[in-house]
Amino acid sequence: MQYKELNVDSMLGFIQNLETIKKYFGSDELSVAEIGDGNLNYVYIVKSLQNPKKALIVKQAVEYLRCVGEEYALSRERMSFEIRALKIFYEYLPSFVPKIYYENEDMSLVIMQYLDEHIIMRKGLIEKDTYPKFSEHISTYLASTLFYTSSLYLQSDKKRELIDEFNKNTQLCKLSEDFVFTTAYMEHDTNDNENVNLNPHAKRLFEDMEFKSKILNLKYKFMTQTDCLVHGDLHTGSIMLNKDETYVIDPEFAFVGAFGFDIGALVANLVNSYIHHSVVTKNEEFKNYLLKTIKDVLELFEIKFLELWANQKESALLVDGFLDEVSLDNFKLEFMKNILRDSIGFAGAKIARRVFGVAGVEEIRGIKDKKLRGEAEVLALKIAREFVMKYGKIDNIDEILEIIKNAG
Amino acid sequence: MQYKELNVDSMLGFIQNLETIKKYFGSDELSVAEIGDGNLNYVYIVKSLQNPKKALIVKQAVEYLRCVGEEYALSRERMSFEIRALKIFYEYLPSFVPKIYYENEDMSLVIMQYLDEHIIMRKGLIEKDTYPKFSEHISTYLASTLFYTSSLYLQSDKKRELIDEFNKNTQLCKLSEDFVFTTAYMEHDTNDNENVNLNPHAKRLFEDMEFKSKILNLKYKFMTQTDCLVHGDLHTGSIMLNKDETYVIDPEFAFVGAFGFDIGALVANLVNSYIHHSVVTKNEEFKNYLLKTIKDVLELFEIKFLELWANQKESALLVDGFLDEVSLDNFKLEFMKNILRDSIGFAGAKIARRVFGVAGVEEIRGIKDKKLRGEAEVLALKIAREFVMKYGKIDNIDEILEIIKNAG
Repeated sequence: MQYKELNVDSMLGFIQNLETIKKYFGSDELSVAEIGDGNLNYVYIVKSLQNPKKALIVKQAVEYLRCVGEEYALSRERMSFEIRALKIFYEYLPSFVPKIYYENEDMSLVIMQYLDEHIIMRKGLIEKDTYPKFSEHISTYLASTLFYTSSLYLQSDKKRELIDEFNKNTQLCKLSEDFVFTTAYMEHDTNDNENVNLNPHAKRLFEDMEFKSKILNLKYKFMTQTDCLVHGDLHTGSIMLNKDETYVIDPEFAFVGAFGFDIGALVANLVNSYIHHSVVTKNEEFKNYLLKTIKDVLELFEIKFLELWANQKESALLVDGFLDEVSLDNFKLEFMKNILRDSIGFAGAKIARRVFGVAGVEEIRGIKDKKLRGEAEVLALKIAREFVMKYGKIDNIDEILEIIKNAG
Repeated sequence: MQYKELNVDSMLGFIQNLETIKKYFGSDELSVAEIGDGNLNYVYIVKSLQNPKKALIVKQAVEYLRCVGEEYALSRERMSFEIRALKIFYEYLPSFVPKIYYENEDMSLVIMQYLDEHIIMRKGLIEKDTYPKFSEHISTYLASTLFYTSSLYLQSDKKRELIDEFNKNTQLCKLSEDFVFTTAYMEHDTNDNENVNLNPHAKRLFEDMEFKSKILNLKYKFMTQTDCLVHGDLHTGSIMLNKDETYVIDPEFAFVGAFGFDIGALVANLVNSYIHHSVVTKNEEFKNYLLKTIKDVLELFEIKFLELWANQKESALLVDGFLDEVSLDNFKLEFMKNILRDSIGFAGAKIARRVFGVAGVEEIRGIKDKKLRGEAEVLALKIAREFVMKYGKIDNIDEILEIIKNAG
């Protein structure tokens, strides 16, 4: 099929030829509307007029960055990687990943489940909403997606096929290389320069060579470590949830990378929320809820990952019986510690990049009061620096919580 | 072109249709002979009858392991990776890589320069030949091939293209995963079992969980670290040389892997020669020559790698000006130390796997006197163990030499 950019008018004509979609809606009449909040892509909602609960999301990539416009070229191939990642993650975790009804790499288009009873986690946390099942859900998601796509589960040929599928997600990986690990720590026109110029904290950050050397190590890890398929952008804006359900969306940045990258992104964004509430609401109870969430996610992730590993005696890495039981257990604990360490390093980079770099987060950049926003920035830089400087020596989860608490 | 397995009879008919080959030989009459020493492939020499100095090598892969026979299936695709690697390495180092006259991935066939004045380094070292230019040459080869194919030189898109070209060398990578990092340390039917059964040193090795845990770390590094394009099998049997020239051949194991893997393979095989002479010839002068060669190769590699790096201000990893000069220098020294450490870890695995595993080396397994062979094996295991247990803490090259000298 040849690529064609769809719009509200041409959408119905397109989807009415699709068997699975016809089956879903039956003979209902349909409405189409654009949902305006996609950064990268066009997102539409298709609804039944007879039963508005019946609705699907259509997402199509265009040859540019939607939020900037046609002058910022970005290959629509990114949708192919999103489709492939969604399918793989859905296979392992159908209850945490939107169901796909139709996908077409030629058209850079996917049609999927509409999450109408869920909100973006970032917004929920700003509103001090709590999600009692979140730690349980996301730790299952992380343990499964990371384990089942790694050399601890797959055999070598399958792992290499996975690399083949995602290796060419070059442009989106490059965005992370640039924005997470490079430009946010130096003068650059993509930064939030109105805030950066004359800001002594920005000046100090840009001159902090000890910190930047560690960032460079993390960047190298990001570029060269092929542990498993990662979501690649697992911040709280990529999570939609409510009290009972949790969905992970938007894996267009997916690639075969480091175990710690998704975990780090999630921790970073929970910390960003913590910083917001430290400065804005000063709600100690909610801050403690966030700390507990970080602790639970990290602890449960380790337990569940090890459970999956315990059931897998043979893989690319392991042949049953190669190590005795005690040695294998020790090997695994050391392995998990390294994942934790990398996660905290990546979390530090992910927090720091949001302070002055492109695409700040609402929790911090969205603070209207300039003085409070400045306080939040200082706090973010403090925690980020501790994470980045110490990640290689972290031994347990409590040390991570101490860093956050001691900072503010 | 459709694949067809050639032989001595059909060879002339095939090559006489090739323009570059016709040009090379002119109107000379040609002879074809098989050279019988290839493990994996069929190798032929094509010679001019008028001028026997005019000769080319034809190498063709078949769908099985030549040295075992048709019952050991091995995809002939391996030749595609050899061809691709030869072309890339030749581009950077035309004086250290055989010139290619013709290559055809469909036919799994390459025609290249005949090295008639060079011998396989492994055999030369057994004969106590010295090669005054070897350290200079191989350090240039290593620094260039590893640097120019890494994220320290390439931009991200080119690096990913390189991964694409080599990612599917699955079968040969799997041979290394199995034979270098797994089966040589446990009971396995591919081992040299005549020697293994009832051998107390084999028993001790197979039960040495501390050592095997470290081997597992190295295996994981081998499988998941994508620093640069490595030769993948850089032992002294893959080097042909004389006093003046050095050629690296047979890169069919090439893949995008860890910096330290080729360096480690080379060090391991120089150590194997050292062990041979410790036990068999007891020639201290030659042993010292080997030690000096190891030292020179490692030192010169670092100097040359850093020289190349100094000229490359922008790459996937670095943006000019990101770090100040002092910090960048420190970053690079730390980076080089990690390469050295990994190299010694891999060297340890490469030495150990040759003791009881499949495909022993002539220096050790070829020792006819059983008592002497046993001594050589003990010495190999001793050095290998020290390398593997200590690699993560090696700080300089002298420590490596001390380990070798102290062992024997």
